[in-house]
Amino acid sequence: MPIITLLTDFGTTDEYVGLMKGAILSINPSAVIVDITHNIDPQDVTAAAYAIDSAYGYFPPGTIHAAVVDPEVGSRRKALALQANGHYFCAPDNGILSMVIKKSNTVRAVDLTNADYFRQKVSHIFHGRDIFGPVAAHLSLDVNLNLLGRKLDADDLVMADIPVPAIDSRHRIEGQVISVDRFGNLTTNINADIIAQWRRHVKVQTPIICIGPVTIAGLVDYYAEVPEGQLVALIGSRDLLEISVNRGNARHVLGVNTGEPVCITSK
Amino acid sequence: MPIITLLTDFGTTDEYVGLMKGAILSINPSAVIVDITHNIDPQDVTAAAYAIDSAYGYFPPGTIHAAVVDPEVGSRRKALALQANGHYFCAPDNGILSMVIKKSNTVRAVDLTNADYFRQKVSHIFHGRDIFGPVAAHLSLDVNLNLLGRKLDADDLVMADIPVPAIDSRHRIEGQVISVDRFGNLTTNINADIIAQWRRHVKVQTPIICIGPVTIAGLVDYYAEVPEGQLVALIGSRDLLEISVNRGNARHVLGVNTGEPVCITSK
Amino acid sequence: MPIITLLTDFGTTDEYVGLMKGAILSINPSAVIVDITHNIDPQDVTAAAYAIDSAYGYFPPGTIHAAVVDPEVGSRRKALALQANGHYFCAPDNGILSMVIKKSNTVRAVDLTNADYFRQKVSHIFHGRDIFGPVAAHLSLDVNLNLLGRKLDADDLVMADIPVPAIDSRHRIEGQVISVDRFGNLTTNINADIIAQWRRHVKVQTPIICIGPVTIAGLVDYYAEVPEGQLVALIGSRDLLEISVNRGNARHVLGVNTGEPVCITSK
Repeated sequence: MPIITLLTDFGTTDEYVGLMKGAILSINPSAVIVDITHNIDPQDVTAAAYAIDSAYGYFPPGTIHAAVVDPEVGSRRKALALQANGHYFCAPDNGILSMVIKKSNTVRAVDLTNADYFRQKVSHIFHGRDIFGPVAAHLSLDVNLNLLGRKLDADDLVMADIPVPAIDSRHRIEGQVISVDRFGNLTTNINADIIAQWRRHVKVQTPIICIGPVTIAGLVDYYAEVPEGQLVALIGSRDLLEISVNRGNARHVLGVNTGEPVCITSK
Repeated sequence: MPIITLLTDFGTTDEYVGLMKGAILSINPSAVIVDITHNIDPQDVTAAAYAIDSAYGYFPPGTIHAAVVDPEVGSRRKALALQANGHYFCAPDNGILSMVIKKSNTVRAVDLTNADYFRQKVSHIFHGRDIFGPVAAHLSLDVNLNLLGRKLDADDLVMADIPVPAIDSRHRIEGQVISVDRFGNLTTNINADIIAQWRRHVKVQTPIICIGPVTIAGLVDYYAEVPEGQLVALIGSRDLLEISVNRGNARHVLGVNTGEPVCITSK
Repeated sequence: MPIITLLTDFGTTDEYVGLMKGAILSINPSAVIVDITHNIDPQDVTAAAYAIDSAYGYFPPGTIHAAVVDPEVGSRRKALALQANGHYFCAPDNGILSMVIKKSNTVRAVDLTNADYFRQKVSHIFHGRDIFGPVAAHLSLDVNLNLLGRKLDADDLVMADIPVPAIDSRHRIEGQVISVDRFGNLTTNINADIIAQWRRHVKVQTPIICIGPVTIAGLVDYYAEVPEGQLVALIGSRDLLEISVNRGNARHVLGVNTGEPVCITSK
């Protein structure tokens, strides 16, 4: 059975997610629908770009991912379907798929212009229900991507301005906090690869992590390696540097949030 | 596969929704269960009446909708199953289906008196799990409505006091805010039909919308037609007048809430 | 189709639950996954122990329950799969299954040591996705429990320190509030059985319930038996003594929380 995942900023208090699922099941009653999250901050395209990039690879190849954070809905922004890394994606052309696209060798993209695959009546303000959900449902019925609209060149797609970590002239990795989870864990954009590169570069094994007013010496493997309430740095489940407090909340302890600078130095 | 939707005020923090799903799947393991929302404000039957009315039509005909906001659970209020507009509904007889019933030409309703279709042990305080869920599961197995209990006349069902917009003697449409969504969009009870009727009546094309301290001239098609942070009025995804702020939160900007009067005038 | 339930403290704002479902569906695309809740307070193993014990019996025999509140993830705490009362459970060995185990006549438990049934790459900090989800998926494909790891004696499993109500020397039942739901209803650990035992003991029919500054005389069957806003005590849907306010919020009215002492006396 084909899987369709949903990632939106619709929340779960209103009926919007239910309507999108109704629209999908009206087209393919056998679709297996999985919520990734509906609690992306309203209109936060960048947060959604990180989340869909982190999540999609855990689903089987051929899964269809509808990612809808869409502040420009109804305007002339394009609506996309694309195939990348063996998965399908339906989303507005606003940068939400930036990281998926950047990391894929080949991307087949179409501008969703064929209204045969939309809901019969399309509103100006709810394309999740009227376009992206229905198109995802048709893809789950093996409709060919090319039938859905006009081919697009991957270079023409809108890309979000995603901050990239870098090693600066003082041999420091400069990054930032990109998300804070329910536990108050701070995920940064510093990935395991750049840390390995930095280690070869500075020939130092123990990185010093600086964030806000504190420094943390070295990485641990898991939270409970340190006493309760103590700060730790580790490589998190996204393969990114994460700053946490064992059985506590690093966001509250440090008083920081998304965008906070984080650096790694050798001393 | 039959679809069962759930709309409740149970929240998603406690295990209640899980128990209701367990009760359904124990009767029909093939039921496809879709959450519309579980975050209706506790005991807010009117909000639930709007939400189920907005949502059910997006599901395939034959879908079974269990709508449970039930402050009188365990008392002598009736428990209902009914068929309307090609869909099935299971709900307490407290007005939650008022709008569904009002808009349907024919309604077949039964008082759920046949305990053969309940869970074996019925608690006094959780009929979602013990009555409405199980009855929905049996309906999804094609049990005939008439077997579930005693036939009821649609006129005998409890109706909620739903505020209806009207054109007053000064040729103004008087309505109110009926819900506020996650984005702070204010949905009113003024529908597209009454606005069309008003336009023919006053022979004015541009309605002036008054809410709280402000007026908004004219309707737009979508949020991004105006600059970021500006108020707009438009016909929302429920075909109702909606007041919003482009990339902002109209509830916060206007400081209003559900029940706030909204009017449309010609000048 | 096999059912897998999920009960975690992952929340629904981050993508974690989605990843766990992706990992399950990658192994068994036909698994029916049901969320019990993901909003257990972070790291609150005791609350999770109550919740899974309350919930699992409402699912069909053979259901697989993955219960993951796991502050010690990555340390040397064991990972468990077990069979009890005709259901399967996958969980960390930290007491989360204490109540399930205590109430089961026979428990077959294994230490999850066979990495063939894990995700290929296992992180140190997300065993829900990498171990418990995949093992649940394999169980749903009828993999035998014994293949998953080394047999454990039920007596060797970690048990949480769950407070048990007791009848004291003054013939009072002493218990406490163990959870507070969305409606502000206070669930205690005083069950219907101990109240029946107490009644035989003191030969009094009407129990007096004491909590915080108030006493409540007698039990009702359902909330709406008393006027709006009035406190009531009743046997709730878990067969436990519950203190509520009709159409109100007992937590707010009484200003109490989990852990608050509750007693039953005869005068």
